[in-house]
Amino acid sequence: MNFSSKLLENAVNEVSQLPGIGKRTALRLVLHLLKQPASQTHQLSSSLTNLVDEIKLCKKCHNISDVEICEICANPSRNEEIICVVEDVRDVMAIENTAQFKGLYHVLGGKISPIEGIGPHNLTIDSLIEKVNDGIVKEVIFALSSTIEGDTTNFYIFKQLEKYSIKTSTIARGIAVGDELEYADEITLGRSIINRIPFENSL
Amino acid sequence: MNFSSKLLENAVNEVSQLPGIGKRTALRLVLHLLKQPASQTHQLSSSLTNLVDEIKLCKKCHNISDVEICEICANPSRNEEIICVVEDVRDVMAIENTAQFKGLYHVLGGKISPIEGIGPHNLTIDSLIEKVNDGIVKEVIFALSSTIEGDTTNFYIFKQLEKYSIKTSTIARGIAVGDELEYADEITLGRSIINRIPFENSL
Repeated sequence: MNFSSKLLENAVNEVSQLPGIGKRTALRLVLHLLKQPASQTHQLSSSLTNLVDEIKLCKKCHNISDVEICEICANPSRNEEIICVVEDVRDVMAIENTAQFKGLYHVLGGKISPIEGIGPHNLTIDSLIEKVNDGIVKEVIFALSSTIEGDTTNFYIFKQLEKYSIKTSTIARGIAVGDELEYADEITLGRSIINRIPFENSL
Repeated sequence: MNFSSKLLENAVNEVSQLPGIGKRTALRLVLHLLKQPASQTHQLSSSLTNLVDEIKLCKKCHNISDVEICEICANPSRNEEIICVVEDVRDVMAIENTAQFKGLYHVLGGKISPIEGIGPHNLTIDSLIEKVNDGIVKEVIFALSSTIEGDTTNFYIFKQLEKYSIKTSTIARGIAVGDELEYADEITLGRSIINRIPFENSL
């Protein structure tokens, strides 16, 4: 691309470093900003720099938070005996939206992935083990995505937790509510038969 | 969405104001930035604020530029007798990439669009007429997109230029190089037959 302006070129180059945004999309976004009042761009920029400069991770669950102990961990009505292990803040948000979970979370910050160079020590697994070691936790629920990396991470943590007498569980895999059986993949459908539940539990 | 952090929420809200970026994509982008060194976000922010604060429009062609007269207008080897009328800087970049045009540009800054509240006086049409009135220009080439708004804008400018004894032309519409006839739309194919050119010109 031949840019008529160095300022424009710099902005497009920076924006196109974001994942999934190529040079053309970046140019479209930047030209959009140029058509808006400058205040919008100033707000956008300051919201991003404020975020990266001031964000904290909750000291207990490692979730993104504005304060040292996040709202969920600080809430006395949550059950601290049950810990749900998730990958990142999006999973916490998704589970919170269901309003079905009243325990606490533990945010790993990723999954074990040798290809991306992420080992167990890049995640917050040690802190989870410490938490379990304190003796309050009675159940750990694995809620990672069901990919090879997710399963590997689940298994690694499971092995670390074996010596403690706590319950470990994983969220149910099966046919999504509203989905047609014929379009389900074989592994999911197979698992949903093996892990069938008493009918009265589904009512 | 229930955000665990006000800083995160602000950043996601600002990013999701960009066209084509919803809340989920914005969250993904913002979380990506959080995983990168803070310096990347600082560079991104400052490149955007520098752009909106310091960008200029070329006084002659209204193209985006770092200086008062853009590189193309300031280039003495360009032919100032031919003006190519385009919508925005992306069109200038696209035509420059072809290396087929040695005249100057005139950037309108949009198209006449009553629905979006854009009239002739929101564009740089008056400045184009002034330029033609100075007597140097011999040909004006319309290179707007072939939509109703583009055609309306072409026609409006054409009417304004009628009283000057200059040539007006429009870029050729037809079957793209490499395209198959059977997939071309009827209007394009029809026009390509009506506006056929001597075979020797296509060699």
